[in-house]
Amino acid sequence: MHTIDWIDDAVVIVDQTRLPAEAVHLRLTTVEALVDAIRRLAVRGAPALGVAGALGVALAVRQHSDPAELHKAVRLVAEARPTAVNLARGVHRAAAHLPSFDAVLAAALQLRDEEILNSAEMARRGADLVLELCGPSPRLLTHCNTGGLATVVEGTALAVVFELHRRGALAGVIASETRPLLQGARLTTWELARAGVPHRLAVDSAGPFLMARGEVDAVILGADRICANGDVVNKVGSYAHALGARAAGIPFICVAPETTVDADTPSGDKVEIEDRGAAEVTGTTAPPGTAAVNPAFDVTPAALVTAIVTDRRVWRPAPPPR
Amino acid sequence: MHTIDWIDDAVVIVDQTRLPAEAVHLRLTTVEALVDAIRRLAVRGAPALGVAGALGVALAVRQHSDPAELHKAVRLVAEARPTAVNLARGVHRAAAHLPSFDAVLAAALQLRDEEILNSAEMARRGADLVLELCGPSPRLLTHCNTGGLATVVEGTALAVVFELHRRGALAGVIASETRPLLQGARLTTWELARAGVPHRLAVDSAGPFLMARGEVDAVILGADRICANGDVVNKVGSYAHALGARAAGIPFICVAPETTVDADTPSGDKVEIEDRGAAEVTGTTAPPGTAAVNPAFDVTPAALVTAIVTDRRVWRPAPPPR
Repeated sequence: MHTIDWIDDAVVIVDQTRLPAEAVHLRLTTVEALVDAIRRLAVRGAPALGVAGALGVALAVRQHSDPAELHKAVRLVAEARPTAVNLARGVHRAAAHLPSFDAVLAAALQLRDEEILNSAEMARRGADLVLELCGPSPRLLTHCNTGGLATVVEGTALAVVFELHRRGALAGVIASETRPLLQGARLTTWELARAGVPHRLAVDSAGPFLMARGEVDAVILGADRICANGDVVNKVGSYAHALGARAAGIPFICVAPETTVDADTPSGDKVEIEDRGAAEVTGTTAPPGTAAVNPAFDVTPAALVTAIVTDRRVWRPAPPPR
Repeated sequence: MHTIDWIDDAVVIVDQTRLPAEAVHLRLTTVEALVDAIRRLAVRGAPALGVAGALGVALAVRQHSDPAELHKAVRLVAEARPTAVNLARGVHRAAAHLPSFDAVLAAALQLRDEEILNSAEMARRGADLVLELCGPSPRLLTHCNTGGLATVVEGTALAVVFELHRRGALAGVIASETRPLLQGARLTTWELARAGVPHRLAVDSAGPFLMARGEVDAVILGADRICANGDVVNKVGSYAHALGARAAGIPFICVAPETTVDADTPSGDKVEIEDRGAAEVTGTTAPPGTAAVNPAFDVTPAALVTAIVTDRRVWRPAPPPR
């Protein structure tokens, strides 16, 4: 199962808003439908968004022959969400082949195939690194969803978890639920259960305490954007886990494809952090009219990041914590 | 409105599981009904639990004339929840007057009245301290519910917030939602809205990032138990906020009645931390059968606590962060 693919002239995605209750595929044939799916997180995760962006250009060529209209549609895809660099990168890579539909689609499918290879590379390097830093049978904590649902198959940080499990070298994983949209509770637990990986769910705020109590050997998670200085922009809650890891003296490991590294962004304070509005947070629990502050991402300073594992290298922005 | 009181031979509480949708009073006439209400958090918050414990002894005297049965019922109340020291303390204080019903009830009502006075004292001291540490118009972040719903009236940390608002000296409050049971989202926002205090709701894991981004001048919250060395045992998530406050160089202030200070517990690692089971965390979002780790409380080491404000004193376990 590919999380995102091009089948019979349409972008086909697994609708992640309906997991874990049901695994439904959505067939998207217009730029508008794709942008809507991106905005409501039916497809999400930095690498999957890169492929979505590239395939979106193919949809745009199909829809528009007028160059101005085509340009507008391509921009609409690129700007569907502001924080992950991969989305705009995927768009630009495919758009370089405009106006040829065949060339655009070929570029998009090449990106898809690269992401599949990237997952395998990250899994191998990441598993080696975790065993080097933690010794045998590590107990890991992860945040948000970085599995096959965030990429095309297998994932980034969760690909490392799957690889350690395949090697028989993993004690277990704590999945942080990831409020407000509960990607950890809904998606990561679903993927871990399918793969037979021993796991427990925890509220996000318990992470640092579970580390202090000695129940976690390393934190491993993904990235939406990695800045030139090693600052990591990732799902809100990552920074709190990084503070917990530093206080507990355990490694904080970020796993993401090299395409997530953005040399044009010098540091995290330069990244626009998407605020996704009150409704996601207030839901049905808070009194009507309650205001919220809802940053979807946060910035973990490079000094707290033990290692960044990409498909090409292991980068150590901070000195080892012990 | 008192959160808990003795009216017409019964313990009367506001059922906090039904807020903010509806404000319903429960009339509890047996020890079993009271223990059930305590366990399912219909009444909660360390000071309110102290009064509940004391009034529970009065219920026990009414129910049981046999000394062995009475003793058993009193123990049932004392052990309804393990972490907050106030519950057992309230029980023991009233139980010292056994078997006289009148004396037991008088002791329980005295405790209720003391808690009302304590809230006023904490509010005054805490407001003075916040203004001393933060300067005028502070922006505060609070966690869980420490308002009138956690005490008899007004609260502990939230009493400080109300006092600053009455003085016209508060810019606003961020309420941390407090997963898994959302006391912040359900109860704190409800109390803040009733009092007209400007506030915004945030997911728990956003707290440290909002501090790093410069949107918070101090963290202010309660305590379920304060150890002899100044370690603070409070709702899970408090420790992550403390790490965030330390990293951002802002004060972390704990407000609790002197009765919460437990000289018999030398440090936080000696406190039994209640695990409330998987159902609260997995809810309807995680796949059926998902395991969880669900510590209801965590321990903030004294070194991260700028000040503990009680009804009698301001105690500064850690040196000021700047």
